[in-house]
Amino acid sequence: MAGEVKFGILSCANIARTLISAMKLLPEVKIHAIASRSLDKVQSFAAANDVPKETKLYGSYEELLDDDEVDALYVPLPTGLHVEWVLKAAAKKKHILIEKPPAHTVKELDVMLEALQKNGLQYMDGTMWMHHPRTHKMEAVLHDSSTIGRICEVHSTFNYSAEVAYRRKGGLSADVRGNPNLDGLGALGDIGWYCVRGILWAYDYEMPKSVTAHPGASYNEKGVIVSCGATFVWEDGRTATFTTSFNTGHVMKLLVVGVNGSLENDDFVLPARADRAGFKVVSNTSWKDVLGGWNRTEDVQEVTLEIPQEAHMVREFARLVASIRDGSGAVEPRWAEISRKTQVLLDAVKESIENGLKTIDV
Amino acid sequence: MAGEVKFGILSCANIARTLISAMKLLPEVKIHAIASRSLDKVQSFAAANDVPKETKLYGSYEELLDDDEVDALYVPLPTGLHVEWVLKAAAKKKHILIEKPPAHTVKELDVMLEALQKNGLQYMDGTMWMHHPRTHKMEAVLHDSSTIGRICEVHSTFNYSAEVAYRRKGGLSADVRGNPNLDGLGALGDIGWYCVRGILWAYDYEMPKSVTAHPGASYNEKGVIVSCGATFVWEDGRTATFTTSFNTGHVMKLLVVGVNGSLENDDFVLPARADRAGFKVVSNTSWKDVLGGWNRTEDVQEVTLEIPQEAHMVREFARLVASIRDGSGAVEPRWAEISRKTQVLLDAVKESIENGLKTIDV
Repeated sequence: MAGEVKFGILSCANIARTLISAMKLLPEVKIHAIASRSLDKVQSFAAANDVPKETKLYGSYEELLDDDEVDALYVPLPTGLHVEWVLKAAAKKKHILIEKPPAHTVKELDVMLEALQKNGLQYMDGTMWMHHPRTHKMEAVLHDSSTIGRICEVHSTFNYSAEVAYRRKGGLSADVRGNPNLDGLGALGDIGWYCVRGILWAYDYEMPKSVTAHPGASYNEKGVIVSCGATFVWEDGRTATFTTSFNTGHVMKLLVVGVNGSLENDDFVLPARADRAGFKVVSNTSWKDVLGGWNRTEDVQEVTLEIPQEAHMVREFARLVASIRDGSGAVEPRWAEISRKTQVLLDAVKESIENGLKTIDV
Repeated sequence: MAGEVKFGILSCANIARTLISAMKLLPEVKIHAIASRSLDKVQSFAAANDVPKETKLYGSYEELLDDDEVDALYVPLPTGLHVEWVLKAAAKKKHILIEKPPAHTVKELDVMLEALQKNGLQYMDGTMWMHHPRTHKMEAVLHDSSTIGRICEVHSTFNYSAEVAYRRKGGLSADVRGNPNLDGLGALGDIGWYCVRGILWAYDYEMPKSVTAHPGASYNEKGVIVSCGATFVWEDGRTATFTTSFNTGHVMKLLVVGVNGSLENDDFVLPARADRAGFKVVSNTSWKDVLGGWNRTEDVQEVTLEIPQEAHMVREFARLVASIRDGSGAVEPRWAEISRKTQVLLDAVKESIENGLKTIDV
């Protein structure tokens, strides 16, 4: 199809397999090319992952950038390589869908966003759950003031065992996530990112006034954050906490607390099932009399999906790219704004950890 | 019955209604007497709450203490009155079941515990969920190293809306919980107590090395804590967080996270239903391949109850009192030890809040 958005995929990172599977579900998207640092590597990746026969395979990132047919790049490179390749891609007028965390610092992110903006290019980070239909359903609950009411606390925890997940590679330190030059924010960037985004999302992207890290942050032997946490405070006393760790079994919780009740979700980033996902709304809480506990209305809401959240994300990004390409629409700045706010808070958490838990004004 | 443990109830606090209902379910217990500061008050309380006809009604606390038949006191007085009346009761050789928080400071608590110990008297605080059969079932899961594995994080939140709960009285500030002289620890003492106890319980009562309050603690106009939170850190990097608030709908969560999975409970202090209660164990977590989320084994375990947790608590306390009385057993020091550890941590949270979030070594 002439109208297809042609994607180039920059690297054969494991997460690229997920996006390739998602892209294959979308008729409006074409996996035009994949590049790795060697032709051997991209060829064996393509063979192993059922990549469409017509997809071009490049043995260098430069060749992919030089392909004028490519509209947009999906960039699952390690964070430490983002600035270099996004700047090169911007010069070649490629729209950017980039894995999170987009940068090691907001300063780095701003360099990329500025280059993209100057070139009229769309930016979106790979925070897939933002695009899940469940997320929109949860937003409707949060915005309905009669259910949980004014939001005053958010708590999020995202943990998994990196030693188990990367055992075949030799554990966390053999993975990019344990390498300060590649994914230098460690657990904070890999999964804490989602907690922070979840908090911002719940507060409708209103920024807190301050960030204070919790004690007990831990590091691997290369100095990468393995676990940490923080409390955010808003101008009028509303708060949020998050904790994240590479050291435990999977925990993936988001709890949004309002004056009348709460909304909770225990697989908010990656639903345990691809075809359906739910969340729980607790409201009308009160004490019972004498013996007998307390009253609450529990409403479990669920959505079913025809395509997984990854495909919803690619669809939305491709829609924006197509509309810019055909002149019917403009760059949507929202995704860069949300990404930058998340990065600002990650920076503040790290600064607080590195400065004796000092409260950082945002 | 000669063997009955004869209880005196010191005040007509609202919570006394719950304990009276519980005591009436137990053949081994007799509600021997109830005292208030006026005879009118105790008489109308007895009439309104279906107190047994044979229960003696006293118009002063002193009269109740002077009743030699009373074995044990249930003390639901506001915290600020505990030292005075526990010391008087100890002098009269009454065993003590006391509402939490037992004291405003551990120094106050130690004065009471010392007097009870000197007189060979049993102490127990009114943390009812410790005695719920569900708690014992959860302990079995936590101690089974194959399920959730070594515990490395605990998170707890207990909130409710004091304005709604005490609306008829005129809100929080008209209740003892909003009065610095009566329940001076506010939300920290009323409900944060349970979060702290839950954390200690999950870590088998091992004390953390440090306590650091979170920013954003709030106070009512009389200077009583309305919301707060803290992070605890153990010697080897294990952590816990809690948050508590009088400003939201009910939240009552305990999440225990181990290296292999987690245990969670969303009504841990007061089960929503009196006749049954459950908890969830998540284990065997791992990423699925490509699209499709993650794997987890969810095991919802439930217990049914013939008598509510309040009756289980009174039964255990009465058992200890009866065994001391008949010489078959000795004072069980465990309940004082656990209570004191909880109080030490509450003191540390408050000290941290009042000292610019300083980390307090415990």
